Amino acid sequence: MKKNVLIIGAGGVARVVAHKCAQHNDTLGNIVIASRSVAKCDDIVASVLEKGSMKVPGSIKAYALDAMDVAATATLIRETGSEIVINVGSAFVNMYVLSACLETGAAYLDTAIHEDPAKICETPPWYANYEWKRREACKEKGVTAILGVGFDPGVVNAYAALAVNEYLDSVESIDIIDINAGSHGRYFATNFDPEINFREFTGQVWSWQNRQWVSNKMFEHSRTDDLPVVGQQTAYLTGHDEVHSLSQNLDVDNVRFWMGFGEHYINVFTVLKNLGLLSEQPVTTAEGLEVVPLKVVKAVLPDPSSLAPDYTGKTCIGDVVKGTKGGKEKEVFIYNIADHKEAYDEVGSQGISYTAGVPPVAAALLVASGEWDVKEMANVEQLDPRPFLNLLNQMGLPTRIKDEEGDRPLNFA
Amino acid sequence: MKKNVLIIGAGGVARVVAHKCAQHNDTLGNIVIASRSVAKCDDIVASVLEKGSMKVPGSIKAYALDAMDVAATATLIRETGSEIVINVGSAFVNMYVLSACLETGAAYLDTAIHEDPAKICETPPWYANYEWKRREACKEKGVTAILGVGFDPGVVNAYAALAVNEYLDSVESIDIIDINAGSHGRYFATNFDPEINFREFTGQVWSWQNRQWVSNKMFEHSRTDDLPVVGQQTAYLTGHDEVHSLSQNLDVDNVRFWMGFGEHYINVFTVLKNLGLLSEQPVTTAEGLEVVPLKVVKAVLPDPSSLAPDYTGKTCIGDVVKGTKGGKEKEVFIYNIADHKEAYDEVGSQGISYTAGVPPVAAALLVASGEWDVKEMANVEQLDPRPFLNLLNQMGLPTRIKDEEGDRPLNFA
Repeated sequence: MKKNVLIIGAGGVARVVAHKCAQHNDTLGNIVIASRSVAKCDDIVASVLEKGSMKVPGSIKAYALDAMDVAATATLIRETGSEIVINVGSAFVNMYVLSACLETGAAYLDTAIHEDPAKICETPPWYANYEWKRREACKEKGVTAILGVGFDPGVVNAYAALAVNEYLDSVESIDIIDINAGSHGRYFATNFDPEINFREFTGQVWSWQNRQWVSNKMFEHSRTDDLPVVGQQTAYLTGHDEVHSLSQNLDVDNVRFWMGFGEHYINVFTVLKNLGLLSEQPVTTAEGLEVVPLKVVKAVLPDPSSLAPDYTGKTCIGDVVKGTKGGKEKEVFIYNIADHKEAYDEVGSQGISYTAGVPPVAAALLVASGEWDVKEMANVEQLDPRPFLNLLNQMGLPTRIKDEEGDRPLNFA
Repeated sequence: MKKNVLIIGAGGVARVVAHKCAQHNDTLGNIVIASRSVAKCDDIVASVLEKGSMKVPGSIKAYALDAMDVAATATLIRETGSEIVINVGSAFVNMYVLSACLETGAAYLDTAIHEDPAKICETPPWYANYEWKRREACKEKGVTAILGVGFDPGVVNAYAALAVNEYLDSVESIDIIDINAGSHGRYFATNFDPEINFREFTGQVWSWQNRQWVSNKMFEHSRTDDLPVVGQQTAYLTGHDEVHSLSQNLDVDNVRFWMGFGEHYINVFTVLKNLGLLSEQPVTTAEGLEVVPLKVVKAVLPDPSSLAPDYTGKTCIGDVVKGTKGGKEKEVFIYNIADHKEAYDEVGSQGISYTAGVPPVAAALLVASGEWDVKEMANVEQLDPRPFLNLLNQMGLPTRIKDEEGDRPLNFA
C-alpha cells in the first residue's frame, strides 16, 4: 500500500492528473504539484478546489521545483512523504525524476519516453537508450517504475496485451490508430507541447515490420479507416514510444503507429520543416543571437492549455489487432472515444490532455492498492490490463471493442 | 562634375553596383565599399578585380563601417574624397547616411524607402515620414539626394514620367507590374533580404485609387496579364515605395503596384504570417530568450546572394499606363526584360540584384556629368527620364515599349 502523490509538471496533462488524484484522494492521500513555475501549480490547485474535485477533505499543495535537480526532487519527495511520483513534466526530465525515485524508493510513473534535447527520433528500441538501463537498479531497490502510462503510450499498450492474451491465438499485427477529430478553432496549434509534438515527426519514423525495424519519412505512408463515431479518417505512419516497447515485449511480427492529420496540419508542418524552422539545432541571426528555431515556433504558437475552452469534437484512439482465433482469421479494434468539451467541463483541460492524464492516476491507484506495485520497472503491456481498463471504465475513459460480434463496451466487472 | 563613389552595403545589389561602377571608373573615379562586415566588402573587391571589371586602372577599397554612425560615415566620405554615395545597405540606415551626406555635401542615392525597424507598412505617403522632411535641408545645402533609384522604385518611376510626358495627353492610371519568372531551385527563398522582403507584405497594402489612399490586405486583389517573354502571369496588389511618390509627384488618378507570386510562395508566406513568424515584434521563448521571429526566419532562409549561381529564367518589370492621346483611349506598356544567368555571368549576382544595382550607377553617372546633379532632393519621376533610360540601354537594362504600334526597343539616341 503506497500513498501520497507528487505530480511533476503543470501543463494541461498535469491539470487532469491533479483533478483525478483529488477525485480519489481517499485512496491516494496528500497531493503535491511541483514545476519550475509555482504560479502554474497554484493555478491548478485553485482549479481543483474551485471545481470541488477533492473527494474527501485533504491536502493539495504547490511547490517550485527544477525537476532536473535530483537532490531537490528527492528532498521534496521525502519532505512531503510522497510514495508515488507521477511525472507529467517535459520528457527531458524523466531520467532525473527516476533517479530521485531510486534514491527515495517512491514509485515512478510517466507518460512519455525520455528525450535528450539535442537528439530527435533516436535509434530503436528507444527505451533501451535510457529507461531500460535502469531496470536492474529498480529491481535491486524494489522500486516500481511504470513507463509510458498515458493513453498512447499506455492504454493502447494495455489494449494490445488484452488482445494478445484474450482475443487471439496468434497475432500478426498491432496497428495503433490515434485520431483527433476535434476542432480548436485556431489557425494552427498543437495539442501538447509543440516542441515535443514536432520532435516526434521531424526525423525518421520507426516501425516494427516483419520483426525488423523499418525507417520511413513522416507522411510517407497513410491508411484510411472508417472508424466508430469519428468516421472516415486518414492517419500516417509515425514513430511513437509504444512501438519501441511492444515490439520487444510482445511476440508480434508487426507493430505500427498511425496518427491522424488533416491536410492543413500537414501543409503547415511541411512548410516549417522544409524551411528549417522545426530544427532543434541553434541558428545565429544577423545580429549574432543564437536561437533554436523550434523554440521560437513554440513561442509563437498558442499555449496548448489555452485551447481547452473552445475545443469541440471527439478523439478516437485504439488498436487494430489482426491474427487468428480457432484457426480463423480475426480482427479486433479495441478503442476509446473521448470528448473535448466533456473533458473541459470536468477538469478544465481538452480531450487530448484528458486521455493522457487520467491513465497515470488509474495506474497510481493500482500502485496504491498493490495490484501494480510490482517493485520493478515495467511497460504497461507487461502488467495485467484488466484492473487498469476496469478503473478507466469508471474514471471517464471507457473501453469499447469492435469485432465480428459487433461494437460494444468492454466490461471487466 | 562629381566623382569618387562610396558604396554602402555588401549584399547582392552592392556587388552589382561595384561591378558597374568599376566598368565606368573612367568617369566615376575611385570606388570605396563599406559595410559592417569588411570581409563581405573584400569579397566584392576580389570579384571586381577577378572579372576584370575595372575599365581603367584605378582604386577600389573595402572598409568596415557602421552606417548608423553618422560621424564615422562622414569621416569616411571626407577621407576617401567621395563626392557620390550610393546607399544600398539596409533600408534601416537611409536617414543616417543622408545625414552624413548633408554634413559633407556628397550626393546621396538610394534604392529603397527608409524603414524604422519597429514599424511596418507606414502611413502614406511614406516618404513624408522620413526623407521629405529633409527636402529643405538638401536645398539649403545644395545637396543632391536622389531617392529610390533602383529598378522599382527607380526605373519604373522614369517609365511613368516618360509615359506622362511623351505618350499620353491625359493619364488615368499607372499600374507597375513586377514579375520574376525565374527559378532558383530551392524549396523557398526571397530574392533580397528576407526581413525587408516580408515587411513589405505583412501589414496593410497601400494604393492610390481615385486620388485617395486605399488600404487592402496582401493577396486581396490580383490581376493576370499576358506579358512579353514571361507569358501569362498573376500579380497581386502590393504596397511599394513608388506608389508613395508617384501619387504626389504626378497628376494621376490611380497608381498601383502589382507583384507576381506563385502559389507556393503565397502558401509559405501565408503559413508564416498566420503563425506570427513574420512579426517584427519580439517574443519570449520558454527559456526566457527574447527574439524577433522575423529575424529567425531570415536566419534559416538561404542567403539571397547564394541563389545567384543556379538562378535561371527572366524578369519582366514595367508600367502599364492608360489614358488618352489625341482624344482616343491609349495604353502603353514600358518595360524591361532581364535574365538571371546573364546577370550572374556578368557581375556574379542574380537578375533581381542586377535590376536593382545597375540603375543607381546610371544615376551616379548622371550626377557625375551634372545632368542629374540637381542640388536638391528628388524622386526619379521629377528628373528627365531620357538620359537615364538612354544610359540603361547601354548598361544592360534596355527599355522596350508595347502599344498599338507594336512591341519594340525604345531608343533615345
